[in-house]
Amino acid sequence: MGPLTVAGAGLVGSLLALYLAQRGHAVQLLDRRPDLRLRQRSEGRSINLALSDRGWRALEGVGIADDIRQVSIPLYRRVMHDRQGQLTGQPYGAAEQAIYSVNRDQLNRTLLDLLEERPSVQLRFGQQLQRLDLAGRTLHLRDVATGQEHAEPYTELFGADGAFSSVRGAMQRTDRYNYSQDYLEYGYKELTIEAGPDASWALEKNALHIWPRGQYLMIALPNLDGSFNATLFFPYEGPTSFAALPDAAAVTAFFAAEFADAVPLMPRLAEEFFANPTGSLVTVRCFPWHTAGVLLLGDAAHAIVPFYGQGMNVGFEDCTVLDGLLDAHGDADWPAVMAEFEQQRKPNADAMADLALYNFVEMRDRVGDPRFLLQKRIENKIAALHPTRWVPLYTRVTFSHLPYAEAWAAGQRQDAVMAQLMPHIQTEADFNGPAVQARLAEELARAGV
Amino acid sequence: MGPLTVAGAGLVGSLLALYLAQRGHAVQLLDRRPDLRLRQRSEGRSINLALSDRGWRALEGVGIADDIRQVSIPLYRRVMHDRQGQLTGQPYGAAEQAIYSVNRDQLNRTLLDLLEERPSVQLRFGQQLQRLDLAGRTLHLRDVATGQEHAEPYTELFGADGAFSSVRGAMQRTDRYNYSQDYLEYGYKELTIEAGPDASWALEKNALHIWPRGQYLMIALPNLDGSFNATLFFPYEGPTSFAALPDAAAVTAFFAAEFADAVPLMPRLAEEFFANPTGSLVTVRCFPWHTAGVLLLGDAAHAIVPFYGQGMNVGFEDCTVLDGLLDAHGDADWPAVMAEFEQQRKPNADAMADLALYNFVEMRDRVGDPRFLLQKRIENKIAALHPTRWVPLYTRVTFSHLPYAEAWAAGQRQDAVMAQLMPHIQTEADFNGPAVQARLAEELARAGV
Repeated sequence: MGPLTVAGAGLVGSLLALYLAQRGHAVQLLDRRPDLRLRQRSEGRSINLALSDRGWRALEGVGIADDIRQVSIPLYRRVMHDRQGQLTGQPYGAAEQAIYSVNRDQLNRTLLDLLEERPSVQLRFGQQLQRLDLAGRTLHLRDVATGQEHAEPYTELFGADGAFSSVRGAMQRTDRYNYSQDYLEYGYKELTIEAGPDASWALEKNALHIWPRGQYLMIALPNLDGSFNATLFFPYEGPTSFAALPDAAAVTAFFAAEFADAVPLMPRLAEEFFANPTGSLVTVRCFPWHTAGVLLLGDAAHAIVPFYGQGMNVGFEDCTVLDGLLDAHGDADWPAVMAEFEQQRKPNADAMADLALYNFVEMRDRVGDPRFLLQKRIENKIAALHPTRWVPLYTRVTFSHLPYAEAWAAGQRQDAVMAQLMPHIQTEADFNGPAVQARLAEELARAGV
Repeated sequence: MGPLTVAGAGLVGSLLALYLAQRGHAVQLLDRRPDLRLRQRSEGRSINLALSDRGWRALEGVGIADDIRQVSIPLYRRVMHDRQGQLTGQPYGAAEQAIYSVNRDQLNRTLLDLLEERPSVQLRFGQQLQRLDLAGRTLHLRDVATGQEHAEPYTELFGADGAFSSVRGAMQRTDRYNYSQDYLEYGYKELTIEAGPDASWALEKNALHIWPRGQYLMIALPNLDGSFNATLFFPYEGPTSFAALPDAAAVTAFFAAEFADAVPLMPRLAEEFFANPTGSLVTVRCFPWHTAGVLLLGDAAHAIVPFYGQGMNVGFEDCTVLDGLLDAHGDADWPAVMAEFEQQRKPNADAMADLALYNFVEMRDRVGDPRFLLQKRIENKIAALHPTRWVPLYTRVTFSHLPYAEAWAAGQRQDAVMAQLMPHIQTEADFNGPAVQARLAEELARAGV
């Protein structure tokens, strides 16, 4: 038996390889790109991701959570910036609950360093999957450095090669393959909020910052060096869009009007705006995720938009789930493990894709709405009164291990209750009135919350 | 200026080429396959399609409706066959309204013959589109007979090359292309109901026959020679499925139990069941349909499942709509014509895709349900009472030129009315009671029907 093959040495592929190696398998990890650890740290753009409970559990499973915690920054709340620079805070959960800002490159480097320490793992960079022969279980690889092509067999193949997966590409060409790719009419642009004096943070450090503006938004997550990575999510076309900002003067004027409090912290704004690419935002759904000897995981199986901060977490949770199934079925019955993985995981990935699109509207639009902020405060009161019955949706998604599909269904039941309740509430004090309390009890019973 | 290029010499591509030639354009029609007119008529399977008002109008637009009418068979009603061979009829519309059974090959041959008569049209078979360079407006064609490849420029390209379109394949590889392909978990198998003595029809000739069986169904459409083409729509997997009928004995026993009245008319049943391929049922949605110099039409833009009998009609209506836009914009402003075609047509194609999936459930399941048949009779009574306000959904789709999206929206409003009304109706006579009539008036007003 040859080694297990993992395609894609990104975050999910690397973590999966660690899990498989920990179980005693020989593993080879293939990637089309060069080893990112050979790059200068200054090269390329810095990207921050939000790590939350599902991701942490996956890291704990291979004993590396503590290492990563050293280089992450806890974010305890959202801070909304209005056009006048007024700030409004909203905690993510209970006092000690946080999501964590981590640098994507640094996390990936750490995972690769850990893989390199394991003799049973072979890292093979610069190997492009030209063609995948599913029936013959053969990889046709091209060595990027030499241009040489060769074929080699595989035993089991894990496609963790991202939203534009080559492994999935081969599966798509089989009969009756369900597939969709849906793009938002929004792109994103990464920008830098510079560190203050002595590498201090010019905005509140332990928060995710949001500039909600109705039809678009900017967010920022902190880095260890005092800077923040900001991301503008913005329409491609239309009166307020990338297409409508053709030059530095237009960009500067637009930011001065819309993000006035951030502009003094963004001295390289116009330069970065045109030097950095505009990223697109895609949701990929497909089915099946497995065929004989091949399983898709991570973005290859379920790319989602970034608005719930769960993209990496859902992929990492894939690794935890797979590890659990190997515990249950043993490490030899791959057909059973792959089939059950797909059955368990597909509805949860679909729910997470829906949640991410739902949160796009919420972050862009609703978090700037006083009625919505009032509703969130009322929901917090309900949660305080009924802590076991009313767990906020964000908490279920971010700070629990409940399957995403169950979290989403519970969230929809809560939305229905709030839609009945909010017309009777104008201020926080109204919540305590007997009529509202009676209605709440009735709605909770009716919704089965 | 070179000729206009149409990719795909199937039904929609051929009809489109006729329309463009009629407007005075030089046209070349490319197809990967050989000219189907060179095949013996006995080769290949016979496939029948349902032609209805939208399709007829498109044929009238190039003056060939009368020719086709000669070789078509009007079907005035559905005839449902239950397990005991009991028949129940249901008219499609008013007395003179019918859908028409036509032979796909014969229709395609007629269109190609008409194209051949036109000196401005060049038919080029055996030309496979290997690669499409959208930026360079260049086709890379492979001559199937010689294996030779060559490149040639195009001015405007119309992709009418079907559900697995190569033209769309090139567009899919551009950034931010929205695409989905969704397969039903059902396949179809074509079978033959033989002609009776002296080429007579062994079942009612002017009807579409349906054997609804809850989780699957068989249908049959008449041919001119007295036979019927039957199609079984059946699950791929499960207790009652293709997978569960592994041999002739199993097929024969299953048909004897489920389609007893048809079996004596199907002497080649078991042989055909294993000789004929199992077809899959896909819905393809994509957007955009056009890019500079390229427009998708027909199944290439919107492949749908066959359960509303509209697949060919929606493609033919594409030709009528495009012709109308050329009347409006002139024959030189292709960017405006293509952009408006896509805007007008996309919502209607999406609605038709939804309708076809909706009718799958209706044909498979509901037409065998006495409550549903009662509802249909009540709807006919409402339509008789309120002929301008209550046009049945099937009539709007099949016997009108109303945009599909409007037909579908009206149908959903009617469904909402019937959902309120039917709990109060146990027999046809109940409809005339004052309480039901009052409720009907109220529901009609509320639904804005």
